[in-house]
Amino acid sequence: MSTAWTSRYALRAKRVKSSAIRELLKITQRPEIISFAGGLPAPDVFPAERFREACNKVLERHSQLALQYGATEGYEPLREMIARHTARYGVKAKPENVLLTSGSQQALDLVGKLFINPGDRVLVEAPTYLGALQAFNVYGAEYVSVPSDNDGLRTEELESSLRLGPKFMYVLPNFQNPGGTTLAECRRHELVALADRYGVPIIEDDPYGQLRYEGEHLPPLIVLDRENLRRDEGYSIGNVIYLSTFSKTLAPGLRLGWIVAPPEVIAKLVQLKQGADLHTSTFVQMVAHEVARDNFLDEHIKLIRKVYGERRNVMLEALKDYFPPEVTWTRPQGGLFLWVTLPEGMDCHQLFEAAIKENVAFVAGDSFYAVNGFAEQGRRHFRLNFSNAQPEQIREGIRRLAVAINRQWRKLHPEKDRPIDQHVFD
Amino acid sequence: MSTAWTSRYALRAKRVKSSAIRELLKITQRPEIISFAGGLPAPDVFPAERFREACNKVLERHSQLALQYGATEGYEPLREMIARHTARYGVKAKPENVLLTSGSQQALDLVGKLFINPGDRVLVEAPTYLGALQAFNVYGAEYVSVPSDNDGLRTEELESSLRLGPKFMYVLPNFQNPGGTTLAECRRHELVALADRYGVPIIEDDPYGQLRYEGEHLPPLIVLDRENLRRDEGYSIGNVIYLSTFSKTLAPGLRLGWIVAPPEVIAKLVQLKQGADLHTSTFVQMVAHEVARDNFLDEHIKLIRKVYGERRNVMLEALKDYFPPEVTWTRPQGGLFLWVTLPEGMDCHQLFEAAIKENVAFVAGDSFYAVNGFAEQGRRHFRLNFSNAQPEQIREGIRRLAVAINRQWRKLHPEKDRPIDQHVFD
Repeated sequence: MSTAWTSRYALRAKRVKSSAIRELLKITQRPEIISFAGGLPAPDVFPAERFREACNKVLERHSQLALQYGATEGYEPLREMIARHTARYGVKAKPENVLLTSGSQQALDLVGKLFINPGDRVLVEAPTYLGALQAFNVYGAEYVSVPSDNDGLRTEELESSLRLGPKFMYVLPNFQNPGGTTLAECRRHELVALADRYGVPIIEDDPYGQLRYEGEHLPPLIVLDRENLRRDEGYSIGNVIYLSTFSKTLAPGLRLGWIVAPPEVIAKLVQLKQGADLHTSTFVQMVAHEVARDNFLDEHIKLIRKVYGERRNVMLEALKDYFPPEVTWTRPQGGLFLWVTLPEGMDCHQLFEAAIKENVAFVAGDSFYAVNGFAEQGRRHFRLNFSNAQPEQIREGIRRLAVAINRQWRKLHPEKDRPIDQHVFD
Repeated sequence: MSTAWTSRYALRAKRVKSSAIRELLKITQRPEIISFAGGLPAPDVFPAERFREACNKVLERHSQLALQYGATEGYEPLREMIARHTARYGVKAKPENVLLTSGSQQALDLVGKLFINPGDRVLVEAPTYLGALQAFNVYGAEYVSVPSDNDGLRTEELESSLRLGPKFMYVLPNFQNPGGTTLAECRRHELVALADRYGVPIIEDDPYGQLRYEGEHLPPLIVLDRENLRRDEGYSIGNVIYLSTFSKTLAPGLRLGWIVAPPEVIAKLVQLKQGADLHTSTFVQMVAHEVARDNFLDEHIKLIRKVYGERRNVMLEALKDYFPPEVTWTRPQGGLFLWVTLPEGMDCHQLFEAAIKENVAFVAGDSFYAVNGFAEQGRRHFRLNFSNAQPEQIREGIRRLAVAINRQWRKLHPEKDRPIDQHVFD
């Protein structure tokens, strides 16, 4: 840091915490490293040719519209498409319930902007999505963390937290990031009922909902909320603000997400979005609409499910083959991530250093906790992504990770003999 | 507003002022209306074919990179291109001085996020860019407004305002929005010296700098700041954060702008941008780079200068031909806007209603003032855009506007005979 900057601006600018994870991700980008750290989709399934055709069509037929300023709300045919799509799940959304955003990260930022004053409480799962914490932190959020288990947020522990008066609850019901867990149906009903009773809005973040590899689709919270309110004539009021994205189904490089909410909420978010970036790229919206239309997106999602489902299976099998019995992990029914729990005494940061020496990477668990007390507990966990690497890399990466774990284990327990895991060193 | 929303969320969400200008802009989009209201570039000069070729190239050669997540800082070759381009103006910027943003509106939002705590003062010109006020308002900014004249911000009135301790100064030195005025060179030197003396950063917003139709290019504030600091070995410290955009030179539908600043400032802004939208569309950045490269952007800017310069001339001539002598206006040397002053007693909102009846629209002047006292004064002004409409429409629109002005004038002064403007009614 130059002294000049420090003396000139530092007192004027706010404190911005530097993100440890950004620095770690730089390490993980070395070519020799097999990285399970990012949340990157598989680039080999991007529908590049369909994108190329869509760009040509949009620029040949509608270039003056595509390259011009557009409405803050979004490109109308895309709003309609998303409304129709949402309607399939039982929510009679109309285009005026939809706001297009610059990725669902922007949706989180706008939600933070709308609700959070410094010191306000936000209810989150423990662990929860790191990017949401980053978005809310800027507005001075304090957190109430509710523990989760293999069935997601523990709703039986929710009521005491709701009494603390959080501004909203932030929940990822499907194949949670980082846990990989899915909120059980009975808990969904409880969550929606409690939101209604305490008048606390739910932010339902659902980037992975369509990427289910086994089991039955569960109703989103917005649907249960509608049923709870016994109104199905439209989506005019309700406790749920629903977020999703094209990042995991089409391509994250578009930066294209959306919010479904009552029109009054959309109107306020539109105001805030206007100040934040005027609107999301018209060109990108029109191209995404052209790519997705005529059932292409549905067909493409089938392909993604097949590819990611296979990679999940490869990772689960490798974990079973290579990891010592003291280590456990979640078994996600969809999404991009699974969550590993280390035996007592092991620390994910020490393991990370050992893993990097074996040329394999992950994200340390404590990054995903909002509240310090929980973050300590987070040091026994880490997150693995299974969507980005090729199957053979996944198997090899898990083998390397098992080597690192075994080395750490031996350091902790030099007295114990562990012939059972010897084969990972072969 | 539904009572349900009001009772459920209203107390939880922050107050978001509804924007009057948004509502007005909807009126101005009726097909029968000639609108001078927006700040829209001319869609007929968008280089659509070049864009099509660029999309094909990017998707044929680099689709896996273009459709994937990217670095928050921006696409490296585009950062390099912007750094080289900035260097032409005398600032030895490096890629690490550049952050790509989702339009320069996002740059304003990030600046607000970095500097403004509720109640902090921001020094602005009176009048100033409405979108900047929208961006800063969200963070609870209070304003110190400094008057401007035909030579821009009146620097002789600056010192007393700087003593009030603003967090930063927000200035548009070239072809200001809405004034159309350009900050005189001697005032640029004064401004930079005062910023240095009081240790107050300058946000230099320069979306139109390259669109000069007459006169000589004046040095940007960042250049003078560098000279002032007597360092030219790089752009490591300084008082100026410089913003610009491709919206007025390539296409606003891309939503692509940038910030040039010392690396320490960029590092903080990167953190904030990560929480705001992770990064700007990789695809859009790669396409823009492909479009702009090999000198295309420079050549294209020559075309834009020619087209917009002609339209400015047409508007200036029509104003001279049709407007009554009591009305005055600025004579911009570049950019997209000019600023009209009505005679005492006339009100731009009443005129707006009369103008809509004549099927012509503009933006009322008081929207561009941060401080209430000035906003009253703003009712004697309005802003006209000359980049979007075709020349014949511009002439017809100004004729219609003259009709509305004359009608208002007659209402105010029924006793005065005004044969001089009779020809506008022909």
